[in-house]
Amino acid sequence: MTTQANTKLWELAGKEEGRVFSPYAWRVRLVLAHKGLKFETVPWRYSEKDLIKPSDKVPVLDIEDKRLFESWEISKYLDEQRPDQSLFKTKCQAGASGIQFITTWADNNMYMAITVVILMDMYNHLAPQDKDYFRKSREALFGQKLEEVCKDSPAKIAAFRKEMEPLRQTLKDHKWLGGEQIDYADIAVAGMFLWARAISDKQLLEKDDPIFKWRERIFKVFNSTIKNSIGYPV
Amino acid sequence: MTTQANTKLWELAGKEEGRVFSPYAWRVRLVLAHKGLKFETVPWRYSEKDLIKPSDKVPVLDIEDKRLFESWEISKYLDEQRPDQSLFKTKCQAGASGIQFITTWADNNMYMAITVVILMDMYNHLAPQDKDYFRKSREALFGQKLEEVCKDSPAKIAAFRKEMEPLRQTLKDHKWLGGEQIDYADIAVAGMFLWARAISDKQLLEKDDPIFKWRERIFKVFNSTIKNSIGYPV
Repeated sequence: MTTQANTKLWELAGKEEGRVFSPYAWRVRLVLAHKGLKFETVPWRYSEKDLIKPSDKVPVLDIEDKRLFESWEISKYLDEQRPDQSLFKTKCQAGASGIQFITTWADNNMYMAITVVILMDMYNHLAPQDKDYFRKSREALFGQKLEEVCKDSPAKIAAFRKEMEPLRQTLKDHKWLGGEQIDYADIAVAGMFLWARAISDKQLLEKDDPIFKWRERIFKVFNSTIKNSIGYPV
Repeated sequence: MTTQANTKLWELAGKEEGRVFSPYAWRVRLVLAHKGLKFETVPWRYSEKDLIKPSDKVPVLDIEDKRLFESWEISKYLDEQRPDQSLFKTKCQAGASGIQFITTWADNNMYMAITVVILMDMYNHLAPQDKDYFRKSREALFGQKLEEVCKDSPAKIAAFRKEMEPLRQTLKDHKWLGGEQIDYADIAVAGMFLWARAISDKQLLEKDDPIFKWRERIFKVFNSTIKNSIGYPV
């Protein structure tokens, strides 16, 4: 499979085009990099829902003659098209269920624990035209003002670190969630940290945390694509 | 490896000897059953810490000339002694990290989500001599009276079900967490449900939940040891 110059990955961007922060779009970006596939990144704002129909959220991937959406579906598609160094096909089914489990945990537990730390930081980086929508929808979700959701940052960061215990224990004994090589579980988790990196200078992890060391390793592996985006030092 | 008639598994018991409800001891009980190893179950109460030294909690396994503790360590030991149908050795390392991740998630997320549903039920089934200790230690942990921890049961059950999302999504697509066969992740999660089954009639799962169906399957596999203990219908 080759990708045309016009393979496009639509990513959530803020006021600055190069500051991209959908954790799910980051997953697809890493999968494309892992597979050595060339693509163009298209900065998208919440106010541009018409441009990504029939999806109403990113990531959206325009590839060959198809429009694909949902990070899991897109990533599986790319993995099947370029099966060497597979991110999903493990030699045993325990590996496959581990990938699913960890990805869903990242979508739920990690997502929520990070959100309550960085929601205001994210709001502050949005394009002006997106701020109203974001505030209304998130405040409806939380039943609170954005500022209330994020207050007492040290406590929220401590809670995040506690929530990370399954990840921490696993990374004490394993180089990657995929064992000796990166698999989609690593990418799913990395996407969450890349979201935080893009819009917040808050330090989510302590330096001696096994997760900190893993994050350093995976950011280094994907440095060539990460450095083409705006973010804070971790 | 053969086990002597005097292989002993120390398990937390309530007022009734046959009502045993340490999720961690249940794990070891299932591993022993899985490996076809004969053992005697010894009902233990919190007030009997002297009997299980140097451990201060169950499970404790007295096997051959050794006293083993920590459910993970005991289970790994048994798995190495009887390596066929291994619960830990997967064909790929993604499997190994999946087992670790899911077990730690069960120890943290599942444990806490179940506790706030069934804590009073557990208290009510304790041996009289254990009640003071249990109340004091759990109230110190929670900073609340036991009755407060467990109030608004429907909300706590709903929260438990929501917390189970990573497990639910994984079991939609996989027969076992180990794929086509049971692995230690299945056993770690089952132990949590066997704790609840022993002391509470509260229905943690809805019938159409993939987790409900998985639980039925695994309880059936281990019926021969489960039926030798007192519990509620699920």
